[in-house]
Amino acid sequence: MKALILQQIHQPLEYGESTDPVGNKETVVVKLMAAAVNHRDVFITQGLYAGIQTPVILGSDGAGEYRGRRVLLYPALEWGDQTTHQGKRFRVLGMPENGTFAEQIAISRKNLFPMPEHLDWQQGAALPLAGLTAWRALFSRCRLKKGEKVLITGIGGGVALMALQFALAAGAEVTVTSGSDEKLEKARTIGAHHTANYREEDWDKRLKKSVGAFDVIIDSAAGDAFSLLVGLASPGARIGIYGGTLGKVGGLSLQPVFWKQISILGSTMGSPQEFGKMLKFVGQHRIITIVDSVFDLKDGNAGLERMDKGEQFGKIVFRV
Amino acid sequence: MKALILQQIHQPLEYGESTDPVGNKETVVVKLMAAAVNHRDVFITQGLYAGIQTPVILGSDGAGEYRGRRVLLYPALEWGDQTTHQGKRFRVLGMPENGTFAEQIAISRKNLFPMPEHLDWQQGAALPLAGLTAWRALFSRCRLKKGEKVLITGIGGGVALMALQFALAAGAEVTVTSGSDEKLEKARTIGAHHTANYREEDWDKRLKKSVGAFDVIIDSAAGDAFSLLVGLASPGARIGIYGGTLGKVGGLSLQPVFWKQISILGSTMGSPQEFGKMLKFVGQHRIITIVDSVFDLKDGNAGLERMDKGEQFGKIVFRV
Repeated sequence: MKALILQQIHQPLEYGESTDPVGNKETVVVKLMAAAVNHRDVFITQGLYAGIQTPVILGSDGAGEYRGRRVLLYPALEWGDQTTHQGKRFRVLGMPENGTFAEQIAISRKNLFPMPEHLDWQQGAALPLAGLTAWRALFSRCRLKKGEKVLITGIGGGVALMALQFALAAGAEVTVTSGSDEKLEKARTIGAHHTANYREEDWDKRLKKSVGAFDVIIDSAAGDAFSLLVGLASPGARIGIYGGTLGKVGGLSLQPVFWKQISILGSTMGSPQEFGKMLKFVGQHRIITIVDSVFDLKDGNAGLERMDKGEQFGKIVFRV
Repeated sequence: MKALILQQIHQPLEYGESTDPVGNKETVVVKLMAAAVNHRDVFITQGLYAGIQTPVILGSDGAGEYRGRRVLLYPALEWGDQTTHQGKRFRVLGMPENGTFAEQIAISRKNLFPMPEHLDWQQGAALPLAGLTAWRALFSRCRLKKGEKVLITGIGGGVALMALQFALAAGAEVTVTSGSDEKLEKARTIGAHHTANYREEDWDKRLKKSVGAFDVIIDSAAGDAFSLLVGLASPGARIGIYGGTLGKVGGLSLQPVFWKQISILGSTMGSPQEFGKMLKFVGQHRIITIVDSVFDLKDGNAGLERMDKGEQFGKIVFRV
C-alpha cells in the first residue's frame, strides 16, 4: 500500500510503498479514505516528543471503510479501566503503532465507531482526536451547563473550534480569543457570540467589562497569560487546560484561585465511552466539522508545514 | 463586657470594656467560653487584608453557651445559595462584624451548631474555621476516598492538622511535610504514616520513591514549590489549595497537569451544610482537635505573636 512514512526525525515524511497490514485475532484492516493532521504529528517529526520510534506511519485521525460500513477510528489504544485518567499502557494512535497516513490500517475492532451519517469522509476524518479532546475538557472535566458563559482561547486550532461548536450546541454563551482578527471574524460566522484579540492592550479588562466573568474557560496556551484567565474566571469557575503552547505558567497568584473556588482541570484525549458520546452528540446536533484545507496524501508534508505555521482555521485533512 | 479590641491596624489589640451586644429578631447573644486564633486575625492586625474597618473585635472561632446548650459558631455569614462557591455578601466572622475575642457575641441563630460532646471548650473553639476549611478541601473538593494516598504540606497549622486527622479517620494513607523535624515527629504521634522535611535536598524525589505518587494533595503554600507537588501527583490526582503563604506560583509546566489529568482545586471555608457534616464526622470519629497553647483573653497579643512566628503545632486558643 501507499503511505507517508517518517524514516527519521527532522526529515520530511516519505510517500512510498509500505507492507500491507494484516489483521489477526484482535485486529481488522480498515481501508482509509481520509486522515487529519494534529500538532502531535508535527511535534514528532521535529523530535519534540517522548519515546519516538522510527520508521513509523504517523496519523491519529482516520475515516474509512470496514465491510461496507463507514467508520471513524477511536484515536488511541488501551485507555484503561479508569474514567478519571488513562492507564499506563495508553498510547495515542500513530506511533509507536502505525497510524492513519496510509491507505490501510490494522486496528482493534474496539476502535471502530460508526461515522455520523451527515459527514463526508474529510469532515469525518477531522473529528476524532480534536472532537474527543474538546468533549472531555468541556463536558467531562468542566461540566459545562446550558446558559453558562464560556471562553475559548486560540480559536482556529482543531480542538478550540470543536469546543466552540460543542459549546454552542449545548446552549452556552461563547467568547473566543485569537491574535488574528481574520480568525475572530470567521469564528463569528460559525456562531461565536463575542470575540477578543489578545494582542490588544487590556483585552481581558475590556472583555470582563463587556461580557462579564466566565463560568468555563478552555485553554491550551498556559504561559504567563494564564493569570489573565484566572482573573476572567467567575466564582466557582472551571478552567480546562489541554495544552501549553506558551510554555510554563509564571507569576500566578493562587489567592483568586482559592477565594473564587476555581478548579483548574488538566485534560487529555478521552476514553472510548467519551468518544461514543461525542459522536452521538455530533450526530444529534448535526455538527459539521471545520476543514481548513485538504491535501492529497502524497503532499502530506505541505499539510504539516501549514500546521507548523499556525495559519489554519480548522483541521488540515489528507485525502487518501 | 470585656473584649480584645483592634482600635487601629499595626497596633496591639486592646483588652478593655466594650458595649454588651444585644440580640434582635435575627440574632441571639451567645456567652463565649473559648475562642481561637487564625492567620486571618494576624493579617488584619498587620493591615494585610482587604476592606479593614476599625474599631472591631476580631476572632472567627468561638465556643460558648446559649440557653444552657454548648454551641460552636459557624465561622462565616451569608455563604449564599451555591454549593460551588460563596456568594457576594459572604463575610468571615470577626470583621466587619464583631467576632469572638470577647465575653459575648450577637450572632444569627443559623450560626449556632451543637458542639460535639466529647470536646471541652478549648478543643471545641479550635475546631470551626480550620475544621471547615480542611473538610471542604479534603472531601467536597478533592473527594478523598478510603485507601488513597494523601500528602498534606506544612503540618502544624490548624487546617493542615485537621486535614491530617480527617484523612486518617477516613482511612487514607497520610504523608505530611514540614520544615521542622520536631513537628514531623509530633505528626507521627498523631498517626501520620510518612513524613518528609522539605528543607532536605530532593525530598520530593525520595518521597516519591519510598511512598509513591499521591492521589490527593492538600497545600496552602503555593510558590515555586508548587511544581514539586504536581510532580508528586498521581494520574487523576486532585490538589486542593486553600492558601498561598509562599506567594505566586512560578515555573509551573502544565504538561504534567493535562497529561496526568490533574485537578487543581481552590478551596476556601465552606457552607453551613458542610459545617454540619464536619461536626458530625468529628463526633462519630471522636476526633480531638490539637490545641497548641491556651492564653487568657487579656493576653491575646501573645497568642497572635505566636501564630505570626509560625511556631505553633495546633490551634492557639483563648480562654474567655
